[in-house]
Amino acid sequence: MPAINPARLLADLHALRAIGAYKTGVHRPTYGTDDVKSRHWLAGKLTEAGLTATIDGIGNVIGHDPSPGRKLLLGSHLETQNHAGWLDGAMGVIFALEVARTLGQGIDVAGWADEEGHFGSFLGSRSYAGLLPEAEIDGCKSVDDGTPLRIALANAGFAGKPRLTADPARYRGYLEAHIEQGATLEDAGQKIGIVTAIVGSHRFRIVFEGQQNHAGTTRMAVRRDAGVALIKLAAAIEDRFPEIVGPRTVWTTGRITLDPGAPSIVPGKAEMLFQFRDTDPAMLRMLEQAVEALVARANEGPCRVTIAHIGRSIPRQMDEGFQAALERAAERHAPGSHQRMPSGAGHDAQILAEKMPSGMLFVPSINGISHHYSEDTHEADLVLGCQVFADAAADILAAS
Amino acid sequence: MPAINPARLLADLHALRAIGAYKTGVHRPTYGTDDVKSRHWLAGKLTEAGLTATIDGIGNVIGHDPSPGRKLLLGSHLETQNHAGWLDGAMGVIFALEVARTLGQGIDVAGWADEEGHFGSFLGSRSYAGLLPEAEIDGCKSVDDGTPLRIALANAGFAGKPRLTADPARYRGYLEAHIEQGATLEDAGQKIGIVTAIVGSHRFRIVFEGQQNHAGTTRMAVRRDAGVALIKLAAAIEDRFPEIVGPRTVWTTGRITLDPGAPSIVPGKAEMLFQFRDTDPAMLRMLEQAVEALVARANEGPCRVTIAHIGRSIPRQMDEGFQAALERAAERHAPGSHQRMPSGAGHDAQILAEKMPSGMLFVPSINGISHHYSEDTHEADLVLGCQVFADAAADILAAS
Repeated sequence: MPAINPARLLADLHALRAIGAYKTGVHRPTYGTDDVKSRHWLAGKLTEAGLTATIDGIGNVIGHDPSPGRKLLLGSHLETQNHAGWLDGAMGVIFALEVARTLGQGIDVAGWADEEGHFGSFLGSRSYAGLLPEAEIDGCKSVDDGTPLRIALANAGFAGKPRLTADPARYRGYLEAHIEQGATLEDAGQKIGIVTAIVGSHRFRIVFEGQQNHAGTTRMAVRRDAGVALIKLAAAIEDRFPEIVGPRTVWTTGRITLDPGAPSIVPGKAEMLFQFRDTDPAMLRMLEQAVEALVARANEGPCRVTIAHIGRSIPRQMDEGFQAALERAAERHAPGSHQRMPSGAGHDAQILAEKMPSGMLFVPSINGISHHYSEDTHEADLVLGCQVFADAAADILAAS
Repeated sequence: MPAINPARLLADLHALRAIGAYKTGVHRPTYGTDDVKSRHWLAGKLTEAGLTATIDGIGNVIGHDPSPGRKLLLGSHLETQNHAGWLDGAMGVIFALEVARTLGQGIDVAGWADEEGHFGSFLGSRSYAGLLPEAEIDGCKSVDDGTPLRIALANAGFAGKPRLTADPARYRGYLEAHIEQGATLEDAGQKIGIVTAIVGSHRFRIVFEGQQNHAGTTRMAVRRDAGVALIKLAAAIEDRFPEIVGPRTVWTTGRITLDPGAPSIVPGKAEMLFQFRDTDPAMLRMLEQAVEALVARANEGPCRVTIAHIGRSIPRQMDEGFQAALERAAERHAPGSHQRMPSGAGHDAQILAEKMPSGMLFVPSINGISHHYSEDTHEADLVLGCQVFADAAADILAAS
């Protein structure tokens, strides 16, 4: 099997890390100055590697192998969460670049746009999979500052460019490498994770409407305190969920806002962002009903409580043949130090899986930390992961 | 008894309302452009009324009656809460101006600075009462944007001016008129409230420290979710307080912040602003112990929870003779339509009460609404309230 070039791999990871560096991590939100810079940088690297590089109308960077024959598509996303880690997304992009260089042919490389959801839901991979209508682009806005996506694309210099879409006949499938972003591998002393399925998630905005008033003069009996209604519902979820969830279910209240948020004012409005994830569609349906039942009970109080879905993804199985190829490669380079596992995080692979066989490889995250600037992975694990990834890609191409 | 001029009173209330108008309310935070404008406007009005007007080094507008003899000090605060009502503070200032004009002599008028706490705690009235050290001014910052108070004073044009302080020998006492900001008077069909005491309050910042992480990949068992710790403590307070509070106790969580506040990130830090109020010092002490016990229990969980006092005021009794004077005046103009009541809100009168006999009069708030731009009071109630206020002031001066 062909050997990757570890020095070249690490040099490119660090070159990309320098674009938008923040403490030991990176701040590179989609379509911001540093994100745009990183996309042009990648296009240059793909060209150097002999691929035909394009930055398309949604900001995807695609490197097409000009040689004949079916290809394997490798990639991940280039942007980061705000003030977050240097490997989330970036590692998979550089692994793809390194494997394309190592194998010499048969590999297309993708640097997807906005997997992290600064403007929408998996905009880049959905665009390439032919699953992103123009009308949806019209409606997207920055979750950070409300900038319309069309304006952001124009500012980035991507407006008016055609969007590339995958020709399914071109591809043998899609492989993505990613940091685990959890501590399952580290806790088990493993070096490689082979993803069996990607969890589905339900994401909600729950809004509470009461009556804003003075916190000193408004007697408790007549208050309609939207903040108290929120606290009670959030606590009811924390009480109820442990009784009904599955062993791998996770749930999170990531944001709470009280309006106006002043110390001496009874909040008249409140809002929470809530989500849960599981690989079992039946579990997801059951949890959704449980949340709706708790919201119905909350509506018996003095405030009006409404719940809206703001995102939903269904669990996706990874291709069995790709899992076997990744497992053989892992066993060759790290015998006994690999395991199959579900992905608790969403990934572009769950989008590509709608159009072609897909697979994913995980490397360990130190202390399981991700979505934080201290996110990291040992260099030896990065090099090993990329070599296993390269072997599996070569194996899949050889079998085509 | 001398009659006030209702048309002049209402015209001045509306002239002041126009400075910083926001919807049907006012946005006039302390030391902002409109607040400064309103202070110069008041100084002009006081001069017209024959008083010696000064804007001092903390922004207080003081009108001194140049005639000999002991004075009664009347006033309230000029600034508003953010995007809030037109009468909170402003009404008491204009009542004071109108009574000074009506009585002709014996009245000093004060337009206090920052009762609403944009930069500190009762800065203006504490300064005039001789209770605000220079070192405290050095440490104050805007709660909205962090601007140091010294910079705000310089921008307002007040830096370097001397601060006036009350000569206790000059004053017979202090009277303040204010909207009730609750619905006690309206619900009882009353027109005038005579304040018996002003509640004390304890205000806290409670901080929760956990571990920020990815909301999809971090198993529930290993999470240290600062948001969940906050939700559980806030819910425990809502469970416990109704069992132990007094009949007039109020408590409020006015602000909750999860950090970083992203939908797919387990919050690593969280913060809540919590307060409670009562007229009974023993009740305040007992509630403080109850909150500290709940915080201690919260610390048995996976997050570190710390509580800090950010403000404390003690309950203040209003002068019995002033209450009697207000009651006589109310009975003259609104027989049977007045009642004695505690104030659930803090007021400058609680500061002046440390240095001189003090009293307060309330007029009804429509629907009990305050700290919101829809705050309002019927015109007839404003005129009646000012006349009662003038009678009581004349009565107190005559008895001196």
